[in-house]
Amino acid sequence: MFDVLFKNAAIITMQGEDTVLKNAYCGVSGDVITYLGETAPADASARRTIDCRGNILMPGLINCHTHVAMTALRGISDDCTLNDWLFNHVFPAEARMTEQIALSAFSLGMAEMLASGTTTFCDMYAYSDKAALLADKAGMRAFMSNGIIALSPDYSFEDDRSVKELRAMLADKTLSSRITPQVSIHCERTSPPEVWEKAVALGHEHNLSMHIHLSEPYEDQENCVKEYGKTPARRLYEHGVFSLPTIAAHCVHITRDDMDLLAETGVTAVHNPVSNLKLASGIADIVRMRSHGMNVALGTDGCASNNTLDMFEEIKLAAMLAKTKTGDPSAFTAYDALCLATVNGAKALGASDRIGMIKEGMQADIILIDTHKPHRVPVYDPISSAVYCLGGNDVYLTMVAGHVLYENGAFATIDVERAMKETEQAVPVLLG
Amino acid sequence: MFDVLFKNAAIITMQGEDTVLKNAYCGVSGDVITYLGETAPADASARRTIDCRGNILMPGLINCHTHVAMTALRGISDDCTLNDWLFNHVFPAEARMTEQIALSAFSLGMAEMLASGTTTFCDMYAYSDKAALLADKAGMRAFMSNGIIALSPDYSFEDDRSVKELRAMLADKTLSSRITPQVSIHCERTSPPEVWEKAVALGHEHNLSMHIHLSEPYEDQENCVKEYGKTPARRLYEHGVFSLPTIAAHCVHITRDDMDLLAETGVTAVHNPVSNLKLASGIADIVRMRSHGMNVALGTDGCASNNTLDMFEEIKLAAMLAKTKTGDPSAFTAYDALCLATVNGAKALGASDRIGMIKEGMQADIILIDTHKPHRVPVYDPISSAVYCLGGNDVYLTMVAGHVLYENGAFATIDVERAMKETEQAVPVLLG
Repeated sequence: MFDVLFKNAAIITMQGEDTVLKNAYCGVSGDVITYLGETAPADASARRTIDCRGNILMPGLINCHTHVAMTALRGISDDCTLNDWLFNHVFPAEARMTEQIALSAFSLGMAEMLASGTTTFCDMYAYSDKAALLADKAGMRAFMSNGIIALSPDYSFEDDRSVKELRAMLADKTLSSRITPQVSIHCERTSPPEVWEKAVALGHEHNLSMHIHLSEPYEDQENCVKEYGKTPARRLYEHGVFSLPTIAAHCVHITRDDMDLLAETGVTAVHNPVSNLKLASGIADIVRMRSHGMNVALGTDGCASNNTLDMFEEIKLAAMLAKTKTGDPSAFTAYDALCLATVNGAKALGASDRIGMIKEGMQADIILIDTHKPHRVPVYDPISSAVYCLGGNDVYLTMVAGHVLYENGAFATIDVERAMKETEQAVPVLLG
Repeated sequence: MFDVLFKNAAIITMQGEDTVLKNAYCGVSGDVITYLGETAPADASARRTIDCRGNILMPGLINCHTHVAMTALRGISDDCTLNDWLFNHVFPAEARMTEQIALSAFSLGMAEMLASGTTTFCDMYAYSDKAALLADKAGMRAFMSNGIIALSPDYSFEDDRSVKELRAMLADKTLSSRITPQVSIHCERTSPPEVWEKAVALGHEHNLSMHIHLSEPYEDQENCVKEYGKTPARRLYEHGVFSLPTIAAHCVHITRDDMDLLAETGVTAVHNPVSNLKLASGIADIVRMRSHGMNVALGTDGCASNNTLDMFEEIKLAAMLAKTKTGDPSAFTAYDALCLATVNGAKALGASDRIGMIKEGMQADIILIDTHKPHRVPVYDPISSAVYCLGGNDVYLTMVAGHVLYENGAFATIDVERAMKETEQAVPVLLG
């Protein structure tokens, strides 16, 4: 007896480029996928059977870099330079952001992610300990951190709010295995090496992975080389940061030597194509990174620079930009693009044994897409459809660890009306 | 008494960058907007009053370059070079495309456009005369042509199917004023100057505008310069093509001299960012075009290279690519991007007196967007929301010439179930 049995689905398993099952079955027992095949299971009894009517079933998407609570700042400022945006708009609004606003916006962002097919996310933002509780309650899979910034002359590691939040998460024995704390250094230029070393030591002590921004605007790379005679990647490496499993967001301006270094140390680059275009940071060369042996995953960044959390938009854009960057439309395929948001994301998070594929024994993180709409017809190839035709809005059902958290506009675990209302009410507060 | 009165809307009028009306009214009588304001009209009686509940109301979008029937080829081939794509996939499938398939796919494409907020489109494809009848029946606003290709040694202008279709449209007195035939030369390399001159003469005889592809792949530009010592734009100009009001699709590789020439002759460049990225054609420099005085509009191209007809995706991508191309996030704003798909499109089509704005006296081509969903909250600025947060799926209602053609999933004039079924059934035929 399955808890849920999906039948008659076009299943993109992500077990390999040609592995699309037709009219297939996917059975879920508890939080695990326990059956997968084009023939019906011997015992097809189930508490709930979902007839997918030929629609697409695929692994839930993995957003490897975001700042979820920044949904409160969605559209607060666009079309300005990075420094104008940061110093005149984002930082002043963040200074006004209360815990209550941040947590309402975090819930709103989780709703947006679930409704657009994201089941796992890596968040880096304030109130990470409180947000972790919300993510757990919402049933999502989350890697949580608050990036360390240590620019003040009287900085104290143990008094750092980011470190306190991390210690609170580590001490909280109520958090489920879906919630994983990470240690986070905001980026190379916003803290000194002695702080990195403390963060790394804390990471090793608790067996944590690292979440960091790397070489996003060109100036970050250029100024570091000018000042220290080496790139941010090399500098972080020399201080042991990459001795932790690391996801490095952006990597727009890393050099070829950096790529070799990041490949050797197993650092994953998290590509954020929308944010990088919108802030004019540049186009990360993910095809070259791959050729250097790097793992590349995908993220949305925060809603202040995107302005959505829609991973399907990132997937299509990643595929298209890779073609344009190389001048070769065949250099990066639809399947390659889906990998960024599934298997590569799982690898980045050390979770390849659990998520990123539809496979027996893996966690039941599953999304269902309704292809019976004018803009999705016809379907020659479900992978092409998923990458080039679909948007987050096309997701019909989202399941995490065997639980249906979103279905046809309804959220099982999030009070979305409240989250929307509270975030709308925060606008005048944030504008000051 | 209005036929339709929209009330309580955030109206993006496109009458200027700061012109967003709050809690505003828009009255429609017949096919015309007869009231616009933040105060209620003296007589607010209406056959139908639509409470917009604070949602966004804006002009219907203008897709200035597409091949609608290519929805039948949506996803037939991706991730290959332009020549592989054209000669091994698209052309063989098109050779198998019957009139019935083309017209079913045309209806499907119109449904997709209406559901994603497009009210006016410029089509270039086979069966243009029959498709024009369907567009008229569907109530859309359409500029129709079939691009002339004259590569055969025994080519005859009068026997050319494209020319015959054009003459059929010109002779058809049943077509409403919403349907405008255009003369179309496919592109510079696919026909000789003597054919262009005949097409131009026909255009002048009937007061038509011209629809052409220009400098899409780099090879088009390069080969022309090698063979003739001049660019395609210059060559077309010297043979009088730009003596007709002209929309030139793509313009990815035009030179600065070309930009001056196109500005002087009033030629509009139609930017197709998704298609250009996906085929690795390059990124058109629309900021530079604008600085040379050119008008720039926006299109989706066909679904074989996109793979959707969603103008909202093009709008966001156009804004983001312009920032990245210039390295300056302020070089092209959200408002600039909306102009591409509204007022600039209207100007391109000589229709600025009728469409592209919400303004009293203009045609009632209106779309309504529901912002009460997780991924659209909060709204700091409706223009930012429309450009950076919304997708075609967010359109709730589409009105053309005063008629509601789409509302909340339902189509008033198109049998969308039939169009989807027939297009799905065409797949094995097109694959051969």
